[in-house]
Amino acid sequence: MNFDMIDAAAKRLQGKARKTPLLSSPYLDEIAGRRVLVKAECLQHSGSFKFRGGWSAVSALAPDQLKRGVVAYSSGNHAQGVASAAREHGAPAVIIMPDDAPQSKISNTRALGADVVTYDRATENRQAIGDALSRDRGLTMIKPFDNAHVIAGQATTGLEIGEQAREMGISSAQVLVPCGGGGLTSGIALALEKIAPDMRVHPVEPDGFDDVKRSLEQGKIVENERQSGSICDAILTNSPGLLTFPIMQRLCGPGIAVPDRDCLRAMAGAFSRLKIVIEPGGAVALAAALFHPDSLNTDTVIVVASGGNVDAPVFTSALKKFGSDE
Amino acid sequence: MNFDMIDAAAKRLQGKARKTPLLSSPYLDEIAGRRVLVKAECLQHSGSFKFRGGWSAVSALAPDQLKRGVVAYSSGNHAQGVASAAREHGAPAVIIMPDDAPQSKISNTRALGADVVTYDRATENRQAIGDALSRDRGLTMIKPFDNAHVIAGQATTGLEIGEQAREMGISSAQVLVPCGGGGLTSGIALALEKIAPDMRVHPVEPDGFDDVKRSLEQGKIVENERQSGSICDAILTNSPGLLTFPIMQRLCGPGIAVPDRDCLRAMAGAFSRLKIVIEPGGAVALAAALFHPDSLNTDTVIVVASGGNVDAPVFTSALKKFGSDE
Repeated sequence: MNFDMIDAAAKRLQGKARKTPLLSSPYLDEIAGRRVLVKAECLQHSGSFKFRGGWSAVSALAPDQLKRGVVAYSSGNHAQGVASAAREHGAPAVIIMPDDAPQSKISNTRALGADVVTYDRATENRQAIGDALSRDRGLTMIKPFDNAHVIAGQATTGLEIGEQAREMGISSAQVLVPCGGGGLTSGIALALEKIAPDMRVHPVEPDGFDDVKRSLEQGKIVENERQSGSICDAILTNSPGLLTFPIMQRLCGPGIAVPDRDCLRAMAGAFSRLKIVIEPGGAVALAAALFHPDSLNTDTVIVVASGGNVDAPVFTSALKKFGSDE
Repeated sequence: MNFDMIDAAAKRLQGKARKTPLLSSPYLDEIAGRRVLVKAECLQHSGSFKFRGGWSAVSALAPDQLKRGVVAYSSGNHAQGVASAAREHGAPAVIIMPDDAPQSKISNTRALGADVVTYDRATENRQAIGDALSRDRGLTMIKPFDNAHVIAGQATTGLEIGEQAREMGISSAQVLVPCGGGGLTSGIALALEKIAPDMRVHPVEPDGFDDVKRSLEQGKIVENERQSGSICDAILTNSPGLLTFPIMQRLCGPGIAVPDRDCLRAMAGAFSRLKIVIEPGGAVALAAALFHPDSLNTDTVIVVASGGNVDAPVFTSALKKFGSDE
């Protein structure tokens, strides 16, 4: 895993991934007491940054691998990213999704032409199901974060952040990134290490699912006690990855954890001030920037809004609770 | 009003207005039966394209005019665009708004430092109030559409559309634009006449408030019968402007009218497929592209999502009605 891989992924993604805007609002700056720039990856193809990693990994396959197809497990965003990339490459895709994933994520993944296999989070092991499919059908497994091509793809988000910040005259900032297994967080950190070394990346997680924060504190990989129980479905990963953790250990932290309630409040703020739709797990970093100033010490904070794949009832509940606040 | 003024406005707006993305979704393409590209001006500063015209007009003022200040009348988006531009230029701003404008538009305009004067749409004349303020306090009136600098500012949306479409290899398309007084519509048409002459601009309005459509059909300026009664508050202008109508007559049409219900449906589609927030009046063009194929005859249709300044209850009602449809 090095910068050349990121550079190569950026070339494969050229003209394929959207260069998403870095948004801001004087109202949000006022709430945060500093400048807040929001990298709107919810506007990426398939509704999240996962398209980058999916495309990067699929486009790196050999023709015979593409022909046999790919398999991935995901609560939804990686599913849609891989399914979308596979479809455009003419490769069959099987996606393993928890049966409690948001309905829209399951139906959208199917609509992208993927064969969706559901499993029970509590009793079944998605990796075992994936390994069996991979072995039996010759499918190439595209892991959601512990895959160098996936990390390199997510890292292109960091390349854009560095470039867009430089155009605004900003070289130093804390960069807050919603963190599940750490693919996006480690990728952005690797990109910024090279092109904006004065920026520091902080993973942000939901309260009670702060495995990355605690792993960084303890200097070793630790797990979450629970597998479910937060609205931030996109980032409820059990522990950081074997590839991503050493990168985060070297370049990132400390981690930040925020309550679900603040995510809903950040979603309402993004609705009224930025006019973008963020899903709960995609809003943890904005929530930290707006409502957890004790974790921040720079004039400018850059937050990634990593995805927008939220069902209407959840979004509506955020607006009902906080729609007239921010 | 010529292309040089647009070019000059683009230079003044350089680094000030956001270059908004041209978004798309395979799901929306499928509904429309053709490629749909959405120019997301809801992501512009102040939440609508009006920032472009406001900045263009304010930045063209002489220092003594800036010092005395500006006055504008608006249902909300032009108000915020002018207030925002005036604040950054250090100029006082008085904004005349109808007392039934969305609460968020009034409070946001105040928060931008403007002095807001409200009036009753049914019994008072906003132009007369503005003229009196202009005369008594020496304020420069910045009309919402019948002002060449404003039109030139809005036209920069057209410059970006032409450029972004060219990057995608598209030179021919119908361009659907939400239309009130015609500032945005005529501006985009003037820009595209020069840089993408095979694109045709169509104004889109709400049913019952299709003064521009009927004016184009009849070859003369006609008025709407009603002043209110549509959720599309941003574009309920009584008639096309004296500056904008001749431009639209030469370059645009036919017009398209859509029911309010289709706007709510388009807002829900933009929520789930594009992850952007569009207000009702900003959604008329997307509504036409998705649900009125009889008005379309090109493989690609480009629609402007002109603004996103919608109160949470209205947005919530769109999601409740149509959130699981698209």
